[in-house]
Parts: sequence; structure tokens; C-alpha cells
Amino acid sequence: MIQKLIQEIKAKDAPIVVGLDPKLSYIPEEILKKSYTAYGETLEGAADAIFRFNRGIVDAVYDLVPAVKPQVAMYEQFGIPGLMAFKKTIDYCHSKGLLVIGDVKRGDIGSTSESYAIAHLGKIQVGSQTYEPFAEDFATVNPYLGTDGVKPFVDICRKDSKGIFVLVKTSNPSSGELQDRLVNGKPIYEHVADKVYEWGKDCMDGNYSEVGAVIGATYPAVGKQLRQDLPHSYILVPGYGAQGGKGKDLVHFFNPDGLGAIINSSRGIIAAYLQPAYEKFGPEHYADASRQAVLDMKEDIHNALDQALN
Amino acid sequence: MIQKLIQEIKAKDAPIVVGLDPKLSYIPEEILKKSYTAYGETLEGAADAIFRFNRGIVDAVYDLVPAVKPQVAMYEQFGIPGLMAFKKTIDYCHSKGLLVIGDVKRGDIGSTSESYAIAHLGKIQVGSQTYEPFAEDFATVNPYLGTDGVKPFVDICRKDSKGIFVLVKTSNPSSGELQDRLVNGKPIYEHVADKVYEWGKDCMDGNYSEVGAVIGATYPAVGKQLRQDLPHSYILVPGYGAQGGKGKDLVHFFNPDGLGAIINSSRGIIAAYLQPAYEKFGPEHYADASRQAVLDMKEDIHNALDQALN
Repeated sequence: MIQKLIQEIKAKDAPIVVGLDPKLSYIPEEILKKSYTAYGETLEGAADAIFRFNRGIVDAVYDLVPAVKPQVAMYEQFGIPGLMAFKKTIDYCHSKGLLVIGDVKRGDIGSTSESYAIAHLGKIQVGSQTYEPFAEDFATVNPYLGTDGVKPFVDICRKDSKGIFVLVKTSNPSSGELQDRLVNGKPIYEHVADKVYEWGKDCMDGNYSEVGAVIGATYPAVGKQLRQDLPHSYILVPGYGAQGGKGKDLVHFFNPDGLGAIINSSRGIIAAYLQPAYEKFGPEHYADASRQAVLDMKEDIHNALDQALN
Repeated sequence: MIQKLIQEIKAKDAPIVVGLDPKLSYIPEEILKKSYTAYGETLEGAADAIFRFNRGIVDAVYDLVPAVKPQVAMYEQFGIPGLMAFKKTIDYCHSKGLLVIGDVKRGDIGSTSESYAIAHLGKIQVGSQTYEPFAEDFATVNPYLGTDGVKPFVDICRKDSKGIFVLVKTSNPSSGELQDRLVNGKPIYEHVADKVYEWGKDCMDGNYSEVGAVIGATYPAVGKQLRQDLPHSYILVPGYGAQGGKGKDLVHFFNPDGLGAIINSSRGIIAAYLQPAYEKFGPEHYADASRQAVLDMKEDIHNALDQALN
């Protein structure tokens, strides 16, 4: 699957993923009104609004980016109807040729992680029939439980040609509390990176592994270091834009050939029209604002890479 | 909420939680056949069988135990219908007076963890209406992202009188890869325990905090140590039975008054009829086998506690 992602990144010339992390407060009044009229102020109404908001953005950006990254928590908070909107969003993105990174951050003891891996990347057997429950292409995975919590995901990556990104150094302010603690003089996140290397080395797809790493844009020095330590892993980089990361912070997450990293922006793209720079689009053209934000992000990253790599 | 759990533990004289982690392979043929006849060999059919299997067990044990712990992964792997069975199971357990610990192991950056906390323990606002999406009483939480990933859960515990159990030392064989690494001479899990203390100290409900810890039955020495370090935290102890933990391993997870810990068994109870000790019940009386397994577990733990505490 990682080669498919690389192919799409090259085809669209954009190492960019759009984080589909909708909140009701991002959704234009007109969309909300229509959904509430149809379904009432219910979880179903909220889920309908979320899906239609997403669809507008996807329609506006699908030709520009290789992938989207829906954050399942934003859907899960609307219960079953929310999760139905999550699934509809995945399917709609696939229908537009986008790859889908399920930002699910699952991880558990072995037998349970296997069920999560099936849920998001694999297939489940029911009697004589087989189903793909959520059918993402990639998923994010939490490493706190160690190898037996991650291995079931890796097994499914190998079997069904899917990919994962393991949390190594997350973008949030307090990520260091645990991840930066030194063990034998080396921060925990580097030990986790060693594991990512180990988990991924027998799960190659061409010159990259199906097992990648999540490293926050907000920690560029860590990105630079781990880019060296994980030569075969793609790095999924959250934290661009709203969380503070800029194009110039990101250059060292990439390999010299411009590959090896994919940068996520969520709020900065999907809620662009609420920001001063894009407010001229207005709520009725929120999706155009998102398109412009993608184009600007693309330019920012290209400029930074051009300066750094040439 | 922790006082409500304690009250139920006392009322039923059982520091026991039943892990509702169904697999199709646990479900008697008759139940499967009925569900497949009604819904086909579909995700809906599987979900129906799972719910009816759970209901049978709940009906057989609800007077014996204070709480159940459904593992969401076992439902998530059946997609939306599976998650509907998860929600139906929660609601059914509540209707029988049981407390529900959602074993969801969620955790993310702050704003996202807030959504997970809302999904499982809190309330979501849709227009002028308010909903409780999954409405568990407790949830398990992954600490890898640090304070800003856990704080939103703690805030909701305080506001809505709910509880969490933070993963400290998990029951699986490879939990030590990360959790046992020494930082300043102290294993990571102890540092996480320090955080649990910190997160929980302003979230008290009587003499216990709403912020508890998960420590595997398979690591009794860790349980003994952390019982001292976390005097105000309840310990949720998975790993009894099928994973290898026995009553005598568990005594040090408890305080001298017999409180402070609640022991989970999943397979050992819900799939009891598939084990030699209970096979005489047969698949048609699978729920009676589960009841007997709860009674035996209760006796095992009581005997161990009596010997240790008297």
C-alpha cells in the first residue's frame, strides 16, 4: 500500500494529507440547517451535516491530494450515526480515488489488537461470507503495549497489502512527558523508532516498509533524527498549520529525493474559511477556501523543499 | 462513580468484572443459526448473535457481579452493526443494574481526546439538544500522549461523575518492552503511576479517585508495588483465568480492607462452556456455565483474600 501512496503523492505532486476532523462549529449554518430540518437536532442530523461538509471538501480537493486522514474520534463522539458518517466518508473518498488513513490510534493486547486490525484494515469472516468492516488503507497505531499489540496490524499489512503509522513522537505539547524520557541515554521515542524499524523490516513494499511512523511537525529536530534512523519508513507528520508547524520545519522529515514524509493538516484546511486569510470566501464557499488552503500549503512545502534540497 | 462501583462490589460481595469480549467462535451454534436465519451471514447477523449471546450471559450473572467490561474491539471488527451491538449491550447491562467499563483504550492529543471522552463518558451538544453517545460509566485510557491526552477524560470524570482506568502495566507478554524500561532507575510504568496519582488527586469521590489504573494480574509484584504508590486509585486487573492469573496472585492488588481492586475475567467466564471444567453444561446451557465460572472465580478470590488478610 505504501507504494500506492507514493505513486499518488508523485502523481499529484503533493506530500499532503487532508485531516477530515470535522466539528459542528466548523460547519456552515446552511448545511447544519438543512440536516437539522431533515433529521432534527439529533445525532443523525449532526452526522448528516458532517458527511455533507466532508463531501464538499473532498469534492474541492480530491484532485490535489493523494489521501485524507479522518480522525475517528470526531465521528465517534456522535455515537453510531457519527460512525456511520465515518464509514460513508471513507467510502466516498475511495470513490474519488483518494487513499484513506484511518486516524484511530488503536492498540491493545495481541488478541484484541487483531480485532482492531480486522476492523480497520482487514476482513472478517461471518459464516461463509467475508466483509471489510471499515476498509481504510492505513491506520495509526499506539505502541504502549509493545510488540504483541502491534504485530497483528503488521500481519494484516503483509497479508492484505495495507499500511500503518505507529505513534513515535506525537505533536501535542505534553508528548514529551513519556516519549522524551531517557532510557539508557536515549529518549523513549527513539526506542519506539527502533521497534518500528524491527516491525517494518519484513513488511517491505518496494523500498519502503508498510510500517511507518507518526512524528509531529512541532518537533522538527526529532523528525531530522528519526528520518535517519528509519530510512525505510514513511513519516506521517501531523501538527502543520493550526498546531504551529510550518513548511520550513518540515524539510528534514523528507529524504533527499523529496519522498519519505506526508504532511497532515486538518483545521487549517477544513476550517480555512473561518481564518482571516480565507474569510473572503465566506461560509457558502467554504470548500473553495479549503481548496485554496491546500494550494497554499502545497506551495509552502514545495518552496521549503526546493530551498532545502537544491 | 467510583463510590457507586465500591457500593456495588460490597453489595454483591464480588470484586469481579465480567469481560464481555465475544467472538463468533464462542457463540453456540443454535444462537448463530437463529441470527443467520434472520439476517443472513452478514455483519448484522453476527452482531445480532453477539448481542443475544451477551444477553444470555448478563441474565445469568447480573445478580452476582457489580460490573461488566465490554472490549469495543470485539464489536468494532463487525463494523457499524458490531458497534450497534456494543451500544445495545451497554444499554442492556444498565437496565440490569450493572455498571459498564468501556474497554476502549482511547487516547490522543488534547482536542481529540476530548471527543473520545465525550463519546464514551460525556455528552455532546447538537443544536439545542444534548446526547450521551455511548454512555459507559468508566473507560480505559492510553497514557502514551501524556497529560493533555488524559486531562479531557479527567475533566469529564469530574464534571459528570464518571471514572477512568489508565493503562499502567498491561497484562500481555510484551508489555515490558516499553513499560518496564528504566528511567532514572524506575520503570516507565511507575512514572505513569506517578502521573495517575497526579491526574487523580483533584478528582476524588470519597476516599478513592475517579482515576484508576490498569495493572495486569500476570504481574503480581507490580500490583503489590503500585498498590502502595497509588493509595487512592482503584486497580482494574485484567489477565485472570485464561491469561494465567490466579486468585493467590491477586491479593496484593487489594488494600487491607479488601477494597481497591476489581478483577476482570473475559474468556474464562463467557466461554466457560468450552473449557473442560464446564463442558458438562453443554452449549445450550452456556450461560449457566458462565454463572458457575463466576461463582468459582468469586470463591477463588475470596479464599485467597481470606488467607492473605486474616
